[in-house]
Amino acid sequence: MKRAGIICVGDELTTGLILNGNGTFLARTLTDAGLSVLWIKTVGDEVDLIAGALDEAFSRVDLCVVSGGLGPTSDDKTIEAASCYFHSPLEMRSEVIRRLEARFRTLNRPMPACNRKQGLLPKNAVLLDNSLGTAPGLLIEKENRRFFFVPGVPAEMKAIVREEIIPRVASSAGFQSRMLLTFGVPESELYEKILDFEKQVPGIRLAFLPGPSGVRLRMYSARGSDIENETGLDAAEQWIRKMLGPAVYGSGEETLAGVAARLLTERRLTLSVAESCTGGLISHYLTDIPGSSSWFNRCVVAYSNEAKMELLNVSLNTLNSRGAVSAETAEAMALGVRESGGTDIGLSTTGIAGPGGGTPEKPVGLVWLGLSHVGGTLSTSRMVGGPTRRINKERFAMAALDVLRRFLLENSL
Amino acid sequence: MKRAGIICVGDELTTGLILNGNGTFLARTLTDAGLSVLWIKTVGDEVDLIAGALDEAFSRVDLCVVSGGLGPTSDDKTIEAASCYFHSPLEMRSEVIRRLEARFRTLNRPMPACNRKQGLLPKNAVLLDNSLGTAPGLLIEKENRRFFFVPGVPAEMKAIVREEIIPRVASSAGFQSRMLLTFGVPESELYEKILDFEKQVPGIRLAFLPGPSGVRLRMYSARGSDIENETGLDAAEQWIRKMLGPAVYGSGEETLAGVAARLLTERRLTLSVAESCTGGLISHYLTDIPGSSSWFNRCVVAYSNEAKMELLNVSLNTLNSRGAVSAETAEAMALGVRESGGTDIGLSTTGIAGPGGGTPEKPVGLVWLGLSHVGGTLSTSRMVGGPTRRINKERFAMAALDVLRRFLLENSL
Repeated sequence: MKRAGIICVGDELTTGLILNGNGTFLARTLTDAGLSVLWIKTVGDEVDLIAGALDEAFSRVDLCVVSGGLGPTSDDKTIEAASCYFHSPLEMRSEVIRRLEARFRTLNRPMPACNRKQGLLPKNAVLLDNSLGTAPGLLIEKENRRFFFVPGVPAEMKAIVREEIIPRVASSAGFQSRMLLTFGVPESELYEKILDFEKQVPGIRLAFLPGPSGVRLRMYSARGSDIENETGLDAAEQWIRKMLGPAVYGSGEETLAGVAARLLTERRLTLSVAESCTGGLISHYLTDIPGSSSWFNRCVVAYSNEAKMELLNVSLNTLNSRGAVSAETAEAMALGVRESGGTDIGLSTTGIAGPGGGTPEKPVGLVWLGLSHVGGTLSTSRMVGGPTRRINKERFAMAALDVLRRFLLENSL
Repeated sequence: MKRAGIICVGDELTTGLILNGNGTFLARTLTDAGLSVLWIKTVGDEVDLIAGALDEAFSRVDLCVVSGGLGPTSDDKTIEAASCYFHSPLEMRSEVIRRLEARFRTLNRPMPACNRKQGLLPKNAVLLDNSLGTAPGLLIEKENRRFFFVPGVPAEMKAIVREEIIPRVASSAGFQSRMLLTFGVPESELYEKILDFEKQVPGIRLAFLPGPSGVRLRMYSARGSDIENETGLDAAEQWIRKMLGPAVYGSGEETLAGVAARLLTERRLTLSVAESCTGGLISHYLTDIPGSSSWFNRCVVAYSNEAKMELLNVSLNTLNSRGAVSAETAEAMALGVRESGGTDIGLSTTGIAGPGGGTPEKPVGLVWLGLSHVGGTLSTSRMVGGPTRRINKERFAMAALDVLRRFLLENSL
């Protein structure tokens, strides 16, 4: 198994200003491609620190990916460090400048002088195409070790890694792993339900990864195991899906909103949404999906009682007698937005995201979810214990998307 | 300024299963305590990798914090690595076992045999109190270098760092830094505008951190600089604010939505929002702010033309003659939602987030932003070049929040 190192460059990382999401993405992607990641080294924007990390990689690993420090400003030092370390002088690459100039023309802005710096690259570097931006990736080889350089902008970094680096480095007998996505069952309950996993599927290990979109289950070959093919993972996936049923909503990079969107499209159904406590977040997740305009009609964020009455036809009587956070209000909102949009389905949320507004009967973390369709209108409640308003909103939104998904699968909440 | 290194141990990190939040916390906390963090090294659960990182720390830094791998299970290797590297044999610490036994008594559970392993610690290690758990932190000194070991459980790690480590290492003249937040000016243009920075404010360095919320400018004392007090940063902030004017929207942890919310509250103004291409994201950002219900009335996500006509009173004539993505539609939406909500201000977006839907005249990335108030209704357009639909939505939303902010500041777009 080839050994890999990852170098992440940036003072914003060594001073703790931002999480190192790039390092985590690179570690997972290289691991999935069959490499053994020995270490991730994060260093500040200093030529000697970067060069030192390159030297460490040269003596320990077969392949190294360096992320960050390729930009046009004076604190971007990676190119200078690579030029020094590999004794490769900088030369102006006209193709890079042409791409930059074309980019600025499209944006209808003059190109600032400092951007020309991005065309100055080590002579012996091979350029890697960046389908999403102007800064190319680089490949420099030295005595059979390969060093890849990618920008720190996450979307561009990911595109270069997926399109240019992984095809060059993926091992033929790659490390096998698979991710199953679950929602609605707490980690400890999942654990009890699939306690027998290692007996049922020897050679495959299981990791539980709880997060805002439910618990992800990662299945992978145990270290030293001979099972390096798909058969063991197929058996494992089949067994887990049997044990957990519809709690498994997808695999890999799927999302709850994406699965709901696929079901809506397959069933040729349209959707409108009425949100109170989630404040537009459900609508945001749904409209992230390309082509959502074919099944998504409208969303009403009805924060005030007046908005609930005027835009969603919730009655003053319901609001007064049951309260804004109640089964009756959730159902009236779902029905109201379905009728307003003339869609097949209406989905609604009303709850208390906090930090204020809770009472003993209706505490922070309580949400009512409504769903209206041609056969009737239903509601269900959830209690989530998020530490912040932001996290409660996210859990409410995910719960609502899961209600929609389960309804589309099973015609019930 | 003392140099620090951070070592994070765990296969879950080098295989990319989880974000390294501990590394980021340690980097920020040590930086704030006046140390210069040279690197963060993340290694898997292997004795030789951990020992190698300890050796690197010994030769390069004054102080090192090692997080993770102190637990009771067989994949916890940090203690073994420390014992080897420092030639310090393990010995059973009865005080640790007594604390463990007391803990399990409190929980009313028998102590599993494997927990006894946590009492076996290097002979020359000083124990650091863990106020939240059973595994103590450790301090091992070697030739004036200090090595701190903390558990990987975030809450326990943070408690030991705050209570036991920082008081031992904080420099009396702490590291000074400050963050200014800008929006609406690209990184390279900002750079040109404040090119003279290092001449104007010697001893202070500047880092450019571009992101979806604009470019953040971090000012900090240069390494080895004598300026370790607030004076230099005050001068730097003043100079940058003078050069950039209202492009600076805030500092520190502020957000565009938060600044707009503060201005609305100060001026006792209320807001309604009409979104098309941003799909609810503006409303989501605004409702993240606790207490937003006092100034936020409603949002209408009008994805379909019918929704724009029915809920926002946009005329069929405007939609047919100018198109859904136009100054006229943006203004009609802003006015429509302001009248519907009965609020002081209406804010709107209509644009093309992609990947489909673009034309030569109205390409993907074009957005029209409308703002309606008692004095009239205005609109302005932006062209953003995000690589994905998701990122275009975010840039559109931020541009709209900035339009709102600038209007509240200056009464113009």
